[in-house]
Amino acid sequence: MAGARAEGAAQVADEGPPSDRTRLRRKADRGRYNEDTIEGILDAAFVAHIGFTTAHGPCVLPMAYARADGHLYLHGATGNAMLRALDGADVCVTVTVLDGLVLSRSAFHHSMNYRSVVVFGRASVVVDEAEKERALGAVVDHMVAGRSAECRPPTPEELRATRVVRVPLVEASAKVRTGPPIEDPLDVDPPFFWGGVVPLTTVRGEPIPDAYVDRV
Amino acid sequence: MAGARAEGAAQVADEGPPSDRTRLRRKADRGRYNEDTIEGILDAAFVAHIGFTTAHGPCVLPMAYARADGHLYLHGATGNAMLRALDGADVCVTVTVLDGLVLSRSAFHHSMNYRSVVVFGRASVVVDEAEKERALGAVVDHMVAGRSAECRPPTPEELRATRVVRVPLVEASAKVRTGPPIEDPLDVDPPFFWGGVVPLTTVRGEPIPDAYVDRV
Repeated sequence: MAGARAEGAAQVADEGPPSDRTRLRRKADRGRYNEDTIEGILDAAFVAHIGFTTAHGPCVLPMAYARADGHLYLHGATGNAMLRALDGADVCVTVTVLDGLVLSRSAFHHSMNYRSVVVFGRASVVVDEAEKERALGAVVDHMVAGRSAECRPPTPEELRATRVVRVPLVEASAKVRTGPPIEDPLDVDPPFFWGGVVPLTTVRGEPIPDAYVDRV
Repeated sequence: MAGARAEGAAQVADEGPPSDRTRLRRKADRGRYNEDTIEGILDAAFVAHIGFTTAHGPCVLPMAYARADGHLYLHGATGNAMLRALDGADVCVTVTVLDGLVLSRSAFHHSMNYRSVVVFGRASVVVDEAEKERALGAVVDHMVAGRSAECRPPTPEELRATRVVRVPLVEASAKVRTGPPIEDPLDVDPPFFWGGVVPLTTVRGEPIPDAYVDRV
């Protein structure tokens, strides 16, 4: 299934929801189902929010991730009970990029500009060693492009201490809001308050070397 | 319960987890349970990820929110089936602020600096009209301080078209990572690769007025 989606990478036209649960209900005009949009959003963020069901109810945890070969990859310590429990479990993985605060003349029409991806699917532990190493390299490269080649690769012990879980990027949808506020005609005839967008951007600051850098 | 927590606002010392499901299992040394830390993180972000259980499995959606009077408030259209379904449901609300990419000499020790809050609880629709209006004002003020006084307040029709849901800030925990990478001694004796932190900050850009601003 992931392969089938991967073949569609060149498609730009929207394909419609891949399953009923991925079909957007609210503000359906903001829905996007094409792979380029979904992958672009996944590449623009660093943290995914993973939802799963426990004996105590739903749980949502933030995790690093990477996208590769039609899958979304998560990882953690082998001793991580949550990650082990995800094997075979239904999960929902959501990634959100916030682009701006939308200030309308009315409290009611305040909004946000954002790009989000919601992936439903069954998580499974990656057992293939080559796939596991590729996934871990992708997680590091997702933080800084090329970084996996500029650090020490994992030892066999470190690989054993790490569990990788994947979710197929099949039942995925995106939702995007852009542009100025929506206004009621009466609120802008004439406008009494300021209206517009406060852009939000995540910026990388100057890298802070640690205490060992001087010792090179 | 929320009142009891609110009385503890002046406490700085950590109180320990308020329930078993809020106790951190992994990297428990990063756990924080005091109210000041939790509220500071909630005030620093704009988007919460709400997890709930549906007939089709777990679901996680990004939503605007505000914190007020010991509760976390969410809102949406009265016609929003998800929000209606949350009434009386167990939810998990997670808010994450990403502060930096932590680049270790080893792929294994790469990490992120972050502050996150996880709230477990039962969601309920707010029926008190005064509380509902306060909550909606808090959501607007959470975007830009003071904004609710600088826009048109909701009409009775707009209030009827809006549903507000609250989750008590009782079963809440925070997790915080700060500082440089952890390094294995062999990786820094001497260090071969660069190591440190790439800070990430969300910045507000110059506000973009909409097309009506010129018509004042």
